[in-house]
Amino acid sequence: MPTIPFLPYSILMGNLGILCLGLTIYWSQHWLGGLAWDGSRKMFNWHPVLMVTGMMVLYGTAALVYRLPFSQMGSKLPWKMLHAILALIAFISAILGLEAVFKFHNVQKIPNMYSLHSWLGLSAVLLFSCQWLVGFASFLWPWTPIWFRAIYKPVHVFFGSVILGLATASCISGINEKLFMRGKNSTSYSKLPAEAWFANVLGMLILVFGVLVLLGLAIPEWKRPDVNSQDFRQPLLQDAR
Amino acid sequence: MPTIPFLPYSILMGNLGILCLGLTIYWSQHWLGGLAWDGSRKMFNWHPVLMVTGMMVLYGTAALVYRLPFSQMGSKLPWKMLHAILALIAFISAILGLEAVFKFHNVQKIPNMYSLHSWLGLSAVLLFSCQWLVGFASFLWPWTPIWFRAIYKPVHVFFGSVILGLATASCISGINEKLFMRGKNSTSYSKLPAEAWFANVLGMLILVFGVLVLLGLAIPEWKRPDVNSQDFRQPLLQDAR
Repeated sequence: MPTIPFLPYSILMGNLGILCLGLTIYWSQHWLGGLAWDGSRKMFNWHPVLMVTGMMVLYGTAALVYRLPFSQMGSKLPWKMLHAILALIAFISAILGLEAVFKFHNVQKIPNMYSLHSWLGLSAVLLFSCQWLVGFASFLWPWTPIWFRAIYKPVHVFFGSVILGLATASCISGINEKLFMRGKNSTSYSKLPAEAWFANVLGMLILVFGVLVLLGLAIPEWKRPDVNSQDFRQPLLQDAR
Repeated sequence: MPTIPFLPYSILMGNLGILCLGLTIYWSQHWLGGLAWDGSRKMFNWHPVLMVTGMMVLYGTAALVYRLPFSQMGSKLPWKMLHAILALIAFISAILGLEAVFKFHNVQKIPNMYSLHSWLGLSAVLLFSCQWLVGFASFLWPWTPIWFRAIYKPVHVFFGSVILGLATASCISGINEKLFMRGKNSTSYSKLPAEAWFANVLGMLILVFGVLVLLGLAIPEWKRPDVNSQDFRQPLLQDAR
């Protein structure tokens, strides 16, 4: 893989993540009626905002923690904890994002979980919950046997990328779905009104963000070379061991 | 990564690929009115059939060629050619799949390229065309310098997985979109009629197929250990060198 400097990459990713989040909030405020936690249509608008925050921006940041150059020196434990905490905040955002859409549906008497987008999105969040729990039990729980950690680590890494891919596909199918629903009430999607242009561009930026996180994870020079080191075996509360 | 035997994996993948294709054809025949190349609604139905054939089943097969155990002995050239030929047939299927939807839209006076699904899908096919051309020029063209091949190979591998991910997300957003459009004329998608159940399950099976191809590509034991070998440097028409 051609060597890319990490600093400009991380600046780009920081800006791109903020841009995706900012555009999602702008879509909610400017076209979808704003945000409120009251069971109304405004409550639904928290769904894209919290999902992009949790499943894309925070999840991507958590995934890239071990690629920070200064994370590769010294003890791995603080970085493991940062990775777990960021992932936990991402997960809580996703749960709140689900709550926003379920409560809105229930109040408005709209069925839940009928679209392929909802099946995919819930699969991503369920897989994420397994990933976090098994990840915590493997890498931070002091009594997990080392052989299990060694077997599980590549599985955790693989599913880390898969879940990000599912989250990206969920965002895209969700934006697409919302724009078809919006077309029933306002200007048809097929006429590409300003809102459709805006949200399509947002979807493509989310896609670029997801692909660039996967690129950051794939660059061999950025990986922490510690698979068989002493540090790899270091669980929570045993920093001095 | 835990070791998985290749034979049951390849049998599973063969059956899953045929199942995805068979269910897509069944959806087209049983619910969407059948297949025809005449500019009518039946012409559109070639779009999902050809896209699942090309961008998922044939593309996935092409990607996994180098993981076949008997491909790892002897010359790499026949496997390079098989990989390129399968990918070319996949690409031709995808182009025909695009032609099906563009011709249908043009005859029916429906705008092209307005949905996020179409933006994503066209991006996937355009990236695939670049991937094929640069792949051919790098690995089968005899005059390409070896240093370029060595730099480009991990890029080709990375984008191979990314394009499969984009294709999977395109299939999911496309099925979701089609079911919302169908809901305008027949039973609403939100009531989950039999067709919606069927196509949602198809979408999830396509997702599982895509993830399992990525898993097959990620298992280290299945990779051909030849990055710096003589064979890696072997382009087209120089088999005896």
